[in-house]
Amino acid sequence: MTPFLSHNFLLDTPTSQKLFLQVASRLPIFDFHCHLSPQEIYEDRPFHDLYELWLAHDHYKWRAMRFAGIEERLITGNGDPYEKYLAWATMLPDAIGNPIYHWAHLELRRYFGIEEPLTADTAPEIWREANRIIQEQQFSPRKLLEMQNVRELCTTDDISEGLSAHKLLSSDPSLKIKIYPTFRLDPLLEIEQSAFPEYVKKLSDQGGSPLNNLKSLEKELIRLISLYDQLGCRSADHGLVFVPYRKISGQEANVLYQKRLNEGPLTSEENNCFRSYLLQFLFREYQKHHWVAQIHIGSLKNARNRLWKYFGSAAGCDAIHDHLVAEELNSFLDSLDQDGALPRTILFHINPSMNDVLASAAGNFADSEIAGKVQIGAAWWLLDHKDGIEQQIRCFANHGLLAASVGMLTDSRSYLSYVRHEYYRRILCNILGQWVENGEYPAESAPLEQLVKRICYENAKAFFNV
Amino acid sequence: MTPFLSHNFLLDTPTSQKLFLQVASRLPIFDFHCHLSPQEIYEDRPFHDLYELWLAHDHYKWRAMRFAGIEERLITGNGDPYEKYLAWATMLPDAIGNPIYHWAHLELRRYFGIEEPLTADTAPEIWREANRIIQEQQFSPRKLLEMQNVRELCTTDDISEGLSAHKLLSSDPSLKIKIYPTFRLDPLLEIEQSAFPEYVKKLSDQGGSPLNNLKSLEKELIRLISLYDQLGCRSADHGLVFVPYRKISGQEANVLYQKRLNEGPLTSEENNCFRSYLLQFLFREYQKHHWVAQIHIGSLKNARNRLWKYFGSAAGCDAIHDHLVAEELNSFLDSLDQDGALPRTILFHINPSMNDVLASAAGNFADSEIAGKVQIGAAWWLLDHKDGIEQQIRCFANHGLLAASVGMLTDSRSYLSYVRHEYYRRILCNILGQWVENGEYPAESAPLEQLVKRICYENAKAFFNV
Amino acid sequence: MTPFLSHNFLLDTPTSQKLFLQVASRLPIFDFHCHLSPQEIYEDRPFHDLYELWLAHDHYKWRAMRFAGIEERLITGNGDPYEKYLAWATMLPDAIGNPIYHWAHLELRRYFGIEEPLTADTAPEIWREANRIIQEQQFSPRKLLEMQNVRELCTTDDISEGLSAHKLLSSDPSLKIKIYPTFRLDPLLEIEQSAFPEYVKKLSDQGGSPLNNLKSLEKELIRLISLYDQLGCRSADHGLVFVPYRKISGQEANVLYQKRLNEGPLTSEENNCFRSYLLQFLFREYQKHHWVAQIHIGSLKNARNRLWKYFGSAAGCDAIHDHLVAEELNSFLDSLDQDGALPRTILFHINPSMNDVLASAAGNFADSEIAGKVQIGAAWWLLDHKDGIEQQIRCFANHGLLAASVGMLTDSRSYLSYVRHEYYRRILCNILGQWVENGEYPAESAPLEQLVKRICYENAKAFFNV
Repeated sequence: MTPFLSHNFLLDTPTSQKLFLQVASRLPIFDFHCHLSPQEIYEDRPFHDLYELWLAHDHYKWRAMRFAGIEERLITGNGDPYEKYLAWATMLPDAIGNPIYHWAHLELRRYFGIEEPLTADTAPEIWREANRIIQEQQFSPRKLLEMQNVRELCTTDDISEGLSAHKLLSSDPSLKIKIYPTFRLDPLLEIEQSAFPEYVKKLSDQGGSPLNNLKSLEKELIRLISLYDQLGCRSADHGLVFVPYRKISGQEANVLYQKRLNEGPLTSEENNCFRSYLLQFLFREYQKHHWVAQIHIGSLKNARNRLWKYFGSAAGCDAIHDHLVAEELNSFLDSLDQDGALPRTILFHINPSMNDVLASAAGNFADSEIAGKVQIGAAWWLLDHKDGIEQQIRCFANHGLLAASVGMLTDSRSYLSYVRHEYYRRILCNILGQWVENGEYPAESAPLEQLVKRICYENAKAFFNV
Repeated sequence: MTPFLSHNFLLDTPTSQKLFLQVASRLPIFDFHCHLSPQEIYEDRPFHDLYELWLAHDHYKWRAMRFAGIEERLITGNGDPYEKYLAWATMLPDAIGNPIYHWAHLELRRYFGIEEPLTADTAPEIWREANRIIQEQQFSPRKLLEMQNVRELCTTDDISEGLSAHKLLSSDPSLKIKIYPTFRLDPLLEIEQSAFPEYVKKLSDQGGSPLNNLKSLEKELIRLISLYDQLGCRSADHGLVFVPYRKISGQEANVLYQKRLNEGPLTSEENNCFRSYLLQFLFREYQKHHWVAQIHIGSLKNARNRLWKYFGSAAGCDAIHDHLVAEELNSFLDSLDQDGALPRTILFHINPSMNDVLASAAGNFADSEIAGKVQIGAAWWLLDHKDGIEQQIRCFANHGLLAASVGMLTDSRSYLSYVRHEYYRRILCNILGQWVENGEYPAESAPLEQLVKRICYENAKAFFNV
Repeated sequence: MTPFLSHNFLLDTPTSQKLFLQVASRLPIFDFHCHLSPQEIYEDRPFHDLYELWLAHDHYKWRAMRFAGIEERLITGNGDPYEKYLAWATMLPDAIGNPIYHWAHLELRRYFGIEEPLTADTAPEIWREANRIIQEQQFSPRKLLEMQNVRELCTTDDISEGLSAHKLLSSDPSLKIKIYPTFRLDPLLEIEQSAFPEYVKKLSDQGGSPLNNLKSLEKELIRLISLYDQLGCRSADHGLVFVPYRKISGQEANVLYQKRLNEGPLTSEENNCFRSYLLQFLFREYQKHHWVAQIHIGSLKNARNRLWKYFGSAAGCDAIHDHLVAEELNSFLDSLDQDGALPRTILFHINPSMNDVLASAAGNFADSEIAGKVQIGAAWWLLDHKDGIEQQIRCFANHGLLAASVGMLTDSRSYLSYVRHEYYRRILCNILGQWVENGEYPAESAPLEQLVKRICYENAKAFFNV
């Protein structure tokens, strides 16, 4: 029996253990997609207590707490922080088999050295001890990132909100971690939302010129891409239920754009036409800048209106969508590829039934530019559990060359989430070790160590060109 | 090597073995969904022979026998019972890896103490021995249920067929098991079927008043729900290809209802509109009575016309559907939730590709009323095999809190099917033990034993409030 | 640790090892579906070198090489053969976990006795050694097939291309292997393709009579089926995104057929109507000849236009489709079954999410004609990896009787691909052995050995009646 979270946690074979302990665990982290605030990293204010650091911004934990039947008052509501923490601690043992159980305890170990499992009984002592450490060691954003050997990270930056924090970061000599922005403009793709005209207005105000027609919008987007690029941006990210593909001209798209702004909602088909056009335009621009295009597919967002109205987006109330994707995704990639305009692309799907569909599509658009030019991304959000991570790694290997994978990212809002890289690396090393010990791959150390280094760190740096 | 079906069957680790043998195997059974006949349980007539008890009503066995190429005459036809039994015994060794192989032999062991595998060779001796026991011990419905420590069970009761048996049971002082009815009205949801008007007529005759418009139907349903509730009903069950969601008023639904009754078939879209309306109405009523809503999703029923015409429904000729479900299911649950009218709900899908879609939807509609208020149900019918059960348990843990699961049910027409609870409990304890021995959960006994007790028995009782 | 590709490769338990080494590995091969050229087998010309034999025709390898970022010049282009081989060898270690890694090394061992893993370092020596053996032993198509104990095989023969090679083979007294043609007519089902009229013209020229209406086409197809049957054909194969089902008469189909020939493209709905009609017609004819109908479902073909234009079809650029299949597939099979006109059918799906859908549909149309009359086929093309093979075997066992499976086929264009039968047999024996050692099946040798013989060889011969 492996003791709870011991050094051999998730590592079933001696080869797996060796690969993790001697190689993977020592590698730095390039977190190429997360939701940390560049402003907070710039300010680097120390955290007050375990509640603020651990519970105040983590919708994974909220979702689990809700499932346990805990009142919203003790989750995102106005409950007392310590009372909320107790509710969390009391619920946690019920999360057997859930990744938050593993993550929470890895976080307590790696950041605080606390090895005791969190329960209603141990909660008070752990609260005192953790808060003591937070204050004694002045836990702050940069401090926590450095503790986990984060060397580079990419935040996610809505294009309507400016890059002021990134400008400050870029000229901060004390910063030891490289921070890059990521271009994100989902509200512009969500033309069906009532907030669309407002978002266009915001962009227009920000840029200082009206965006009354598609040409002007495109011009503004080109300007913003260039601006992001100058501040080190290497990537754009998009959240889509599916990747739409329609053959539609700029003129037709302009008609839809103006109709939406001036006359109101379009039909569902018109929305997809516009979205497809705009995505094609954007991807072509990304390719000009050698950016990486990331697409997070299949999340049915804000599925519960009551919670959405109460809290807003990112409350942890999304569902896995089953929208079909194969035909349009392949056509979309193909239409760009035909013009040599397809950028490096990472396809993330939240529905594990779609792993093979995406991996096979990715395999069609390989290119001598770089290994794994189009590839599937690591398991994320509702899929970011041990089974999901294993499935993604196996799927990648079955359909492509795992050696070309860019590996893990946190996709997180929490500074403590960097243990997820450890979690992923353990699972990866376990699979590699199992293959070796099962006679499926030669047992030579050097090539295996190279594989681990590439997947855990080097590939992502080369892919994002940082 | 574990000997065939030995006490450590399916239990790979010492922790798994301990949890099953010391805890799970000793717990009583609350079978909250099955298809046993309350009339048969009331009458409690002893069975004549192994054929009547084992083969005469089990469409799982029939389906396997057909796959083997056995003639229908020896399955559901007019073949001699012993000849049918021989056909079954001869085929059984070919069912390696199929759950009926495990179930059949668990049944021979647990009810008859027969440890010999059933083959063409052993068939005559097993026939004699089993029949001797059936007669000697007077195997009857209640006797068999008591042998497996069934404490409570819910039958499934079509609302057009009365509750006379349940009335008799409720006043039978000799009954040691609690028997509850379940409200089921699929024919009323299947407005596209030619039998719909006839079913309405039957309800009308039963209730003694015409159901010419939707208001009168709703009134009658309210009356029936109240009647069921008085006889201890705690739940309603529904079989649907998918959960439809349309915004439609009572007036519009009434137009469709009357059109269907007076003018004949509606369009497919109209059928879904009506079905969505009626489901919404029903769920609101269930919530008023604090009932549990069960939805069995995705079975493509009676897929072979030849067999349907020959035998009727429940011949074992269904298929797994791939109809999309995510968007409408989330909207359906959300629309009830917005009004605080969403009852406790168990979502069963027969397509394992939909496990994650359902589990993520369920996770959105948690509530402080009870842990796991909306949850996915155990693997059933075509999915009720070892892999399917494992996947459901893992999926539940990945997306929610497994500790809140209401666990297993038989969904069976056979009095011998209670070994399926053993089968499920072994798989559950195996997974829990593996997690512990793999370092994923602390190895303390008390919390693990509590988990097993809750999932195997206590949660279901609390959820159904029996 | 099992050394790389040792005799116990993929065999985790003693029972698995015994079943493979003492039974499965000694069985001959009936490869009931492949893409070898009957003309090449007839001519039996020795191969020149490792490049020609190993790389020149294998789109599995090409796909992996592309993923690695290798230029097309070194894949299918005009690069030097040795340079191409070096590119392949250099890339191969990155294919950890991918079936081509296993296959390539099994091929080097079984045909050349080379045990060294192929890398950039070992490539020159392996090139020399393999070429020495190719020349010394005069490796030719028949020689290679005999080396792997292939006793019977079915090629795939487009109906517009004649059977001249099969006629020569049928009267070649030196041929030790039985070679059968397979009836394939995908271009006639692909009525949406621009090449459709041309294909009809080709058939018309070949048959010597105009095919201006559907009756004449049907007559010509009946003539061709009879011709194929006389040359030993036992099967027809079809590649479809999904199996369409529409109720449509011959007259209506004829209108569509003539409209397509005379006026150009039909609507998507009309295409499916025609395709459904023609498939129904064909299946009824197959049943008259007691042929096996094979359907390969769900491949999104030639997904990358750039490569398709450069190379043509079969370049290795397909994707996995997610088109829904359940409802129409069941209706299609049912409509034939109602008339007693359903032939033995093997359903292959390339999307693993559809395994259960297909297996459950297959289970509905069993018949006393033969065990497993309708069944799912082995994992193929993009799904033909260890995980895919395991999933297919487990799915078959979960939904039907694995003992009735017709087992593996290569679906390959390469004479070296017969190690895939070994690969499949290892995985199969591993699963069977695991079940036995896990207490899920009795540990008696004789029935287990019979199971292995049936699944690996005998069932296919009985099913195809060869």
